[in-house]
Amino acid sequence: MTRPAYVAVVGAGRSGVADADAETVGRLLAEAGATVVCGGLGGVMEAVCRGARAGGGRTVGILPGTDRADANAYVDVAIPTGLGEARNTVVVRSADVVIGIDGGHGTLSELAFAAKIGRPVVGLGTWQLTRGDGTEDDTIHVVDGPEDAVRVALRLAGDDPS
Amino acid sequence: MTRPAYVAVVGAGRSGVADADAETVGRLLAEAGATVVCGGLGGVMEAVCRGARAGGGRTVGILPGTDRADANAYVDVAIPTGLGEARNTVVVRSADVVIGIDGGHGTLSELAFAAKIGRPVVGLGTWQLTRGDGTEDDTIHVVDGPEDAVRVALRLAGDDPS
Amino acid sequence: MTRPAYVAVVGAGRSGVADADAETVGRLLAEAGATVVCGGLGGVMEAVCRGARAGGGRTVGILPGTDRADANAYVDVAIPTGLGEARNTVVVRSADVVIGIDGGHGTLSELAFAAKIGRPVVGLGTWQLTRGDGTEDDTIHVVDGPEDAVRVALRLAGDDPS
Amino acid sequence: MTRPAYVAVVGAGRSGVADADAETVGRLLAEAGATVVCGGLGGVMEAVCRGARAGGGRTVGILPGTDRADANAYVDVAIPTGLGEARNTVVVRSADVVIGIDGGHGTLSELAFAAKIGRPVVGLGTWQLTRGDGTEDDTIHVVDGPEDAVRVALRLAGDDPS
Repeated sequence: MTRPAYVAVVGAGRSGVADADAETVGRLLAEAGATVVCGGLGGVMEAVCRGARAGGGRTVGILPGTDRADANAYVDVAIPTGLGEARNTVVVRSADVVIGIDGGHGTLSELAFAAKIGRPVVGLGTWQLTRGDGTEDDTIHVVDGPEDAVRVALRLAGDDPS
Repeated sequence: MTRPAYVAVVGAGRSGVADADAETVGRLLAEAGATVVCGGLGGVMEAVCRGARAGGGRTVGILPGTDRADANAYVDVAIPTGLGEARNTVVVRSADVVIGIDGGHGTLSELAFAAKIGRPVVGLGTWQLTRGDGTEDDTIHVVDGPEDAVRVALRLAGDDPS
Repeated sequence: MTRPAYVAVVGAGRSGVADADAETVGRLLAEAGATVVCGGLGGVMEAVCRGARAGGGRTVGILPGTDRADANAYVDVAIPTGLGEARNTVVVRSADVVIGIDGGHGTLSELAFAAKIGRPVVGLGTWQLTRGDGTEDDTIHVVDGPEDAVRVALRLAGDDPS
Repeated sequence: MTRPAYVAVVGAGRSGVADADAETVGRLLAEAGATVVCGGLGGVMEAVCRGARAGGGRTVGILPGTDRADANAYVDVAIPTGLGEARNTVVVRSADVVIGIDGGHGTLSELAFAAKIGRPVVGLGTWQLTRGDGTEDDTIHVVDGPEDAVRVALRLAGDDPS
């Protein structure tokens, strides 16, 4: 590959059981040379950055507020946008592929936005979607664990080394 | 009620079977004195504005591009934001309640964003959501038809005349 | 003219001596059938809306915050963007022409943004600009009073009835 | 200092005589350990990144469009926002201090926005501002050359090592 992939990881801002998976995802992405992009705050965002830091990688936090100090301690490049929740669109735009881990409505909004603008989406324990006509939506590439999430995400980002 | 409700109506930008429902929703909202907010383009957006115009109401179109001429012919107040798809967040912020009609991933993103920021959501033939833990999400108030959609939306907006 | 002009009026958010001019500008714009767009808050924004209301016109307030109740009492269509100060770019984008009245750095930022994206700018008691090479910048159409401001603005918006 | 300063450098997007100064500013900022933030495109933006790269530093490009490939070759972290020119507000928000070099109306808009939100501004061969009441505006710290620009900017950012 000619340039590193940017992978957005989205999930809940509060700590929870998904944090362990997020940390593993971050570490594996870093070990693969990818840049991790996230919303820069706590919960899954902090866990994925902590993992990426442990893996020697680079993390970008795109913050809703106006103060860089809002970023978690594992963000390397902190961008306080001042855009509020609209910064979610920037998180997704910045990435070649988006991994959703668990998460609530904010996460769902980001995954759907990614699908809307043509970014591939990988889902780990996150939302399942049924369209208005009753058909299942297969946009989200459902994976079984963090290793699978990273493998599929990097393949979708066009960075499959195999 | 002391001030009119702002009701965002979101749905597909291409014309389809949902347009008839959207037009009825627009007409009924206008007759109830509500301001209709939408993304200002075609499909459901145009249909809801056409209905609102027929009902004597006011329509606001919040456009992604930079040219007011992009607005459909039934938009009264056209706001070309230049923000691209991020304008979806402004559509939702502008409303007291959001009605989703059918729609694809862009619509889903708007409904989820509304839920995230605490705007009530009414769904007419739109997405059904299952959380990562397998539980159904009951955030969207599912309705059976356009009359029901408007009735529930206005109640949730705090404008129930009853 | 085939459609009403949208005229953005920008100026200080605190009340001051410029408010009287802003109120006259609003009234004259309304009497000419133009839609007044502004940031929706106090000071010049409130004065121009008050004038436009008195003139029987329509006012649009594009707010930085998330609450429609932040709008001044003379805003007809209030758009709480949640974008913070970045909403200034939406105010300017929404208009065919921008009138700056007095104002501080926020106003200057809007006038310069308007010039950047090709919106004509009319200045009433506002900033004078000298480029880095020492030449005067003549982008702002300097006017002498509110009547002149409205006359020039409507001409630049392509709505000169003469 | 406990964390590196983020310094935004803003200027014209077309190549010109200011590029040499911009390249020196970038190199000196990098040598001082600062992160350079810019709009990610050509002209002054490319020159400052080229200098920062030569100085071993880190560069962040916050792009208006939706494609990371729009970034110049010396951007380390490229953020395609999809926000159009509204991304200027994110460039400024991201920085502890802003250096303006020459530049047109877009640059002026960024400098004024910085002043509005309380970011210190350093000007090298850029705009001079006169208020509506005829008084000179002294918000921009005028400097004589790139060395002076970097020295003053880092002091204003709170990173003066002296």
